[in-house]
Amino acid sequence: MTEVSPSDLRTRYATVRRQSLALAEPLSAEDQCVQSMPDASPTKWQLAHTTWFFEALVLGPHAPSYRPFDARFFELFNSYYESLGPRHPRPQRGLLTRPSLAEVQAYRAAVDEAVQGFIAACDAERWAAAAPLLELGLQHEQQHQELLLTDILHALSLNPLQPAMREGAPPPVPAAPGGWVELPGGEVAIGHDGRGFAFDNETPRHRVRLEPFAVGRRLVTNAEYQAFVDDGGYRRASLWLSDGWAAVLAQGWRAPLHWRDDGAEFTLHGLQPRPPDAPVRHLSFYEAAAYAEWAGARLPTEFEWEAAARWREPPAQMFGLAWQWTRSSYDPYPRYRPWAGAVGEYNGKFMVGQIVLRGSSSATPDGHARSSYRNFFAPAARWQFSGLRLAQDRG
Amino acid sequence: MTEVSPSDLRTRYATVRRQSLALAEPLSAEDQCVQSMPDASPTKWQLAHTTWFFEALVLGPHAPSYRPFDARFFELFNSYYESLGPRHPRPQRGLLTRPSLAEVQAYRAAVDEAVQGFIAACDAERWAAAAPLLELGLQHEQQHQELLLTDILHALSLNPLQPAMREGAPPPVPAAPGGWVELPGGEVAIGHDGRGFAFDNETPRHRVRLEPFAVGRRLVTNAEYQAFVDDGGYRRASLWLSDGWAAVLAQGWRAPLHWRDDGAEFTLHGLQPRPPDAPVRHLSFYEAAAYAEWAGARLPTEFEWEAAARWREPPAQMFGLAWQWTRSSYDPYPRYRPWAGAVGEYNGKFMVGQIVLRGSSSATPDGHARSSYRNFFAPAARWQFSGLRLAQDRG
Amino acid sequence: MTEVSPSDLRTRYATVRRQSLALAEPLSAEDQCVQSMPDASPTKWQLAHTTWFFEALVLGPHAPSYRPFDARFFELFNSYYESLGPRHPRPQRGLLTRPSLAEVQAYRAAVDEAVQGFIAACDAERWAAAAPLLELGLQHEQQHQELLLTDILHALSLNPLQPAMREGAPPPVPAAPGGWVELPGGEVAIGHDGRGFAFDNETPRHRVRLEPFAVGRRLVTNAEYQAFVDDGGYRRASLWLSDGWAAVLAQGWRAPLHWRDDGAEFTLHGLQPRPPDAPVRHLSFYEAAAYAEWAGARLPTEFEWEAAARWREPPAQMFGLAWQWTRSSYDPYPRYRPWAGAVGEYNGKFMVGQIVLRGSSSATPDGHARSSYRNFFAPAARWQFSGLRLAQDRG
Amino acid sequence: MTEVSPSDLRTRYATVRRQSLALAEPLSAEDQCVQSMPDASPTKWQLAHTTWFFEALVLGPHAPSYRPFDARFFELFNSYYESLGPRHPRPQRGLLTRPSLAEVQAYRAAVDEAVQGFIAACDAERWAAAAPLLELGLQHEQQHQELLLTDILHALSLNPLQPAMREGAPPPVPAAPGGWVELPGGEVAIGHDGRGFAFDNETPRHRVRLEPFAVGRRLVTNAEYQAFVDDGGYRRASLWLSDGWAAVLAQGWRAPLHWRDDGAEFTLHGLQPRPPDAPVRHLSFYEAAAYAEWAGARLPTEFEWEAAARWREPPAQMFGLAWQWTRSSYDPYPRYRPWAGAVGEYNGKFMVGQIVLRGSSSATPDGHARSSYRNFFAPAARWQFSGLRLAQDRG
Repeated sequence: MTEVSPSDLRTRYATVRRQSLALAEPLSAEDQCVQSMPDASPTKWQLAHTTWFFEALVLGPHAPSYRPFDARFFELFNSYYESLGPRHPRPQRGLLTRPSLAEVQAYRAAVDEAVQGFIAACDAERWAAAAPLLELGLQHEQQHQELLLTDILHALSLNPLQPAMREGAPPPVPAAPGGWVELPGGEVAIGHDGRGFAFDNETPRHRVRLEPFAVGRRLVTNAEYQAFVDDGGYRRASLWLSDGWAAVLAQGWRAPLHWRDDGAEFTLHGLQPRPPDAPVRHLSFYEAAAYAEWAGARLPTEFEWEAAARWREPPAQMFGLAWQWTRSSYDPYPRYRPWAGAVGEYNGKFMVGQIVLRGSSSATPDGHARSSYRNFFAPAARWQFSGLRLAQDRG
Repeated sequence: MTEVSPSDLRTRYATVRRQSLALAEPLSAEDQCVQSMPDASPTKWQLAHTTWFFEALVLGPHAPSYRPFDARFFELFNSYYESLGPRHPRPQRGLLTRPSLAEVQAYRAAVDEAVQGFIAACDAERWAAAAPLLELGLQHEQQHQELLLTDILHALSLNPLQPAMREGAPPPVPAAPGGWVELPGGEVAIGHDGRGFAFDNETPRHRVRLEPFAVGRRLVTNAEYQAFVDDGGYRRASLWLSDGWAAVLAQGWRAPLHWRDDGAEFTLHGLQPRPPDAPVRHLSFYEAAAYAEWAGARLPTEFEWEAAARWREPPAQMFGLAWQWTRSSYDPYPRYRPWAGAVGEYNGKFMVGQIVLRGSSSATPDGHARSSYRNFFAPAARWQFSGLRLAQDRG
Repeated sequence: MTEVSPSDLRTRYATVRRQSLALAEPLSAEDQCVQSMPDASPTKWQLAHTTWFFEALVLGPHAPSYRPFDARFFELFNSYYESLGPRHPRPQRGLLTRPSLAEVQAYRAAVDEAVQGFIAACDAERWAAAAPLLELGLQHEQQHQELLLTDILHALSLNPLQPAMREGAPPPVPAAPGGWVELPGGEVAIGHDGRGFAFDNETPRHRVRLEPFAVGRRLVTNAEYQAFVDDGGYRRASLWLSDGWAAVLAQGWRAPLHWRDDGAEFTLHGLQPRPPDAPVRHLSFYEAAAYAEWAGARLPTEFEWEAAARWREPPAQMFGLAWQWTRSSYDPYPRYRPWAGAVGEYNGKFMVGQIVLRGSSSATPDGHARSSYRNFFAPAARWQFSGLRLAQDRG
Repeated sequence: MTEVSPSDLRTRYATVRRQSLALAEPLSAEDQCVQSMPDASPTKWQLAHTTWFFEALVLGPHAPSYRPFDARFFELFNSYYESLGPRHPRPQRGLLTRPSLAEVQAYRAAVDEAVQGFIAACDAERWAAAAPLLELGLQHEQQHQELLLTDILHALSLNPLQPAMREGAPPPVPAAPGGWVELPGGEVAIGHDGRGFAFDNETPRHRVRLEPFAVGRRLVTNAEYQAFVDDGGYRRASLWLSDGWAAVLAQGWRAPLHWRDDGAEFTLHGLQPRPPDAPVRHLSFYEAAAYAEWAGARLPTEFEWEAAARWREPPAQMFGLAWQWTRSSYDPYPRYRPWAGAVGEYNGKFMVGQIVLRGSSSATPDGHARSSYRNFFAPAARWQFSGLRLAQDRG
């Protein structure tokens, strides 16, 4: 997948791994153990699972002398790899009060030491086999760094004490000018260009024909979304996809997740005022699509989004604020092949019933975003930092 | 949508409407009332709902002097049109022992007479507005003619008496040669060409780029699918999409719906031997995709399917035996616009969470199939006459 | 259990069996097939099941030459007798469009003829064995005559057409004077005295010690219950048992089942005004208990009820209007023994989680009520003709 | 309810409160936060809730100068007292990672200090009002000391690491001779005699008439219950109450909760061999009743149990090993009155759908058991230390 030198990777490994602990640091052992819904995982579990990934996919197969830290962890911290044996049931991850947080931290340290030693001692042949998996392990850990934040935000949001994980106010989001970026359409290259890391689902690069279109110069803001709410957006069936309307009725949705009365929202910094000019977040695909319908627009396809991202004058706010729901189901690209081996389960087996999101969010680690990145969630998911950008036909 | 003369349409109207009654004729009033699951509807309800469609969308808006047969039917037999007011809850359609079958037949007769009179007396302006809706009403009724059969088959299949709705044996399916039809890829036109009727979801016609590929010369057969079952297909997680494997475990799937032990299957003709050379049917998308994986192939995209259907030497069994699951989510075509008015709810609002099927089945009425037709169901649906055709990359 | 002459029983058999058909007569084949919830059974199924009872428990074991009408019915129409083999799943009784109503009627006729022939030809030994089961079969059929009415009422109540099963207005209920009947307590005999038929759950007769108490001279009326509703009865947690309050919130209860706005109620005669002086009906135990709490009273125990029924000046409305929830769980009497054989499953295995109701209702067949009769339903059940009578401590 | 001197109560208060902390001491903060099912509560929540009880019912109403430790705790730690305002949803108690364990411990310390000060400064009038509530608070805390153990045992049992909360082996249970204790029946006094504390549900004392009977001289043992399992006890519908058999099928029960293969059971001491002579535990009422049926016996009523406990030569193992399911639904005693005020919700509102257990278990605090004590749980509950003692009719 990529070519890096062992010493570069050792440095990067240390940096990424340290960052996970830094993110978890403000959380107590109790905070790190809790699971607020089956879709979310405890912080501690994620700290262990990302470690398991290196143990199961790098050290186990490639470091002959490695002895597992604790053989029982193999089942506890396997997420969904059927080919790697049985797994602890996902909805019961929050019951794992043992191993303790301290034991998981020791597990991390032991595996880190083994990985660093493995890299240092690796011959060329072994390196060729293991380096892509090490890189994948780091990318995987970065994905969990974002999930760690969205999952703990969800858990804390259900606590009536409204606890803040971080002190002070969230960093402000500069207002961005509205309007449209116009693109001419035509045939565009979609997918990863081969430079640097990519997940298998971003490949192979292929050509897609687009009609002329425009995309919003910035993301839809809290103030704009508030106008939709005020205009009865959650009471008008005609704006919604059928499944979306059913979700509104069944779940009693009246506003984005984490919105509270009086212009407040629940954040990692606790209850905060909602900045009117900041991008709206914590929407489901259904809400994003209903908003777009109300606004006389639509969501961009993932191909339009990617073309816009590569356009000579790309729109603002493509990365770093909120994932952007697209009007594209998460289907395989033409000639898509999952990776060989256990990591073939990483992406491919989820290619049904999900919607693609593009961009990245304020919770995405630095260096983890790119224009070909395909994030995906079920259309009803609201606990991610997910917003939207409008699109329209042109020409 | 289409241009037909009033007199042609009167004839066609009579033919299509009569056909619904003919299909229901072998069923008792009890049979016609039953609903075996929320996804299925009673025969009687469908006979009434297809009538309501003409009343609500043609006679009501366009025939000024029309008086409803029974004003209470407006809510009872509205399926899912939010813009046309409240609806009787879908899971409770089977509780409608009243109106009786005889009353529904009288309702049909009254509306038929009113429609025939309306067409006969229509001036040009009214005709221009009403003719597309009349045509849509007939296409709608043909869709229900297929559902009528799949739904009653499901209900009868749950009766331990295994009742046959039709006498004798099902018509035999001639064996077809296997192998592949090779296509060169390139840019192909997808969507309806504007000749004759099409649903809005088949439009607009647009160009899609395909890589070289091959599709199976015929459908996958019962014998081939049996080999998958015998090879442990339902026990090997690695063959399945994640949601599909979850469905296998949760539902206890071991074979296609309606398969019984000893090589039998339950059909409209009661319990029958499964012809080895006939296409396998009553698969979910998950099962179709798992079979393709097992067979070293994949499902065609809906675009590949449509290109193959228009190829100079198209594959066999494209129509009339079994709907064919594709590897395409049911997303809108570029620049898709739902029809204006209430009929805008016909297709567009279902464009999420569904998979496209192409072709047609043994239950599809004559004249209702075409190469641009997009059928769609949830990936777990098994009660349709749904099978599969394989595809592979080439070149 | 009882001693009757064969000729008396033949007459009674004919009368009871005819009465079931008479009750069903106003219902169409569709009406007789429908099942509106798992707790309720279709009319047709009940007509068949009561017939199966004679076939399975009388003719099968005792009439050597009897050949089953249709061997497949044995499983279809077994309700819950584990010792008699597998059963069609209860929630799927409404899917049995076959056998048709006409076939079930033929089944009834054939079994009736066989039973009549069996009785006529019975020798003394066989009679001794079979007579109690014949009697039980008739009592069983009478129980189903009441359920037939409550179950179809429930099904019709869910039909927006509000169909009336019976013409005209319901028979008026004469107003009865209020106040209390005072009883001195002391040791009373509870349970069946051995004269005539009784179910096993009414035995053995035993002595129970009561404190002085009073019971309402009549049942609680619609007007009285309306005052409870108007006083916020369904909004005040303090009046309710914990499970009852949970049911109020989860089910959205606001009034008795079948009450409609504007003083109307849905009945076998369709929508009708609620007579203020008539007993309130279609209450759950939870509602009855909450009403009693609100009224500064309580429900009588089943022992108090039975003592009052045998009092020299018993209260009015003990029988024939509405079953009366008691404050007694359905536990076995001291030294209770279920009947031997399959009929041991008739009552005993349900003695947990149920509440005893006493008296009888307007739907109870003549001759089926007695002071020792123990009816029982789950505390949330509302579809029976169930009301209440108050009680208070005295002395 | 009781008369104690302030200084005695201060001592007892300190002892009981300390004991809760001692029980929790081996558990980490993570362990104390987890909730394994809605029926169970986290240790930390219980430590806080028992503290809330003193704050809400003693200090709040009776100590005029008391200021709440944290006003937000009032809602968080109210269990089910509707009259005391809204409550945090029961199934979400495990999400309360905040307040931290240390904060809850500080809450306990602050309330303890306030209570001790309140008692020390109490005048006679205030004492008369507050002393019964203080006593109730201690009894309440003792009940939670048992629940603390059953709930954490359940949580740890679901952890594949099988963690032991306590070191070493459980204390051995001396074998006890089998056989029967015979009682003559007659009229016996049931309920609390007024000496010392009792819950309202144990009153009023009243007379109940019993037939001659025998009860097992000891509890049913693991070895005896194993024989039931080996004899197909979990496969024979005829042994079970109807709801019990449904639970066996739906839950897949094959043995008592916490039994493991190879003669092991999961305990507070981790995985341990099951002592053959020790009482079987972790049974539902359904299993206890099925075992009794299989053994040719029955469960005693709660009245028989109480009579046996007061018999001049009472059976062994009445207290301190396992709660004993009785054949008595949890109904109010004749003339039962709930306590006045908020504590009236303590017991009375749960008197439906529950079964009475008598005795006490190895987890019951010293001094908390008595012959009139009525414990109660739903018939399917298995996570308590619940076993059984047989009974039979005599004479």
